Amino acid sequence: MKIEHLGIAVKSLGTSNELFAKLLGKENYKQEAVEREGVTTSFYEVGESKIELLEATNADSAIAKFLDKRGEGIHHIAFGVENIYTEIARLKTAGFIFISEEPKDGADNKLIVFLHPKSTNGILIELCQEKP
Amino acid sequence: MKIEHLGIAVKSLGTSNELFAKLLGKENYKQEAVEREGVTTSFYEVGESKIELLEATNADSAIAKFLDKRGEGIHHIAFGVENIYTEIARLKTAGFIFISEEPKDGADNKLIVFLHPKSTNGILIELCQEKP
Repeated sequence: MKIEHLGIAVKSLGTSNELFAKLLGKENYKQEAVEREGVTTSFYEVGESKIELLEATNADSAIAKFLDKRGEGIHHIAFGVENIYTEIARLKTAGFIFISEEPKDGADNKLIVFLHPKSTNGILIELCQEKP
Repeated sequence: MKIEHLGIAVKSLGTSNELFAKLLGKENYKQEAVEREGVTTSFYEVGESKIELLEATNADSAIAKFLDKRGEGIHHIAFGVENIYTEIARLKTAGFIFISEEPKDGADNKLIVFLHPKSTNGILIELCQEKP
């Protein structure tokens, strides 16, 4: 397991891409829309992990609601795992609750699933696995 | 540069150590009080990064105030750098604002410094360097 990425909700990818390029000393390596989630994502490599900036593309998306409620900031932690189905089974047995137990397609060629923050100290945690 | 650790504010290390041990599938490798900051920390290895749980030991500490205001959750991102003085100079030139520009001793044998969230999308960002 590793920290695959940190998801950060931002109001404007234009402004925040400029900020994170200066902060990290490098440009993003990819920008990708995920229409089903109503977001556009921007990825930066940082060691073995990534920073994923998330801008809402419609007012009903989870990111738009997060920005309304909390403002800009860290939205989720994603742990990269070898086998997402094995990890889901392990964590269910350990008592963790999932938002949905069925992995779905995420950005950056991943299968993803989210644990419910009520079982994880209020933190939204994603598990992700590179798609075969 | 890498994600050295994620700092997570928790109400109780007892409860959250149990939770994170189950989540990550391993025990913490260290628990350490930082009296000057009014916190006790608990560290887990995750790939090249760490999860740092932070419990307040007095009501005036930054973590106690964060918990009062925001509840449990991600408190800061720490980027590990080779030379903290070079990075401070680079980021100051790029227009970033620091809470204090003089590195101080942190937990886990580190020199640390914090950028002001007003210059970093509302996110508290730490730079840290292993002490020589």
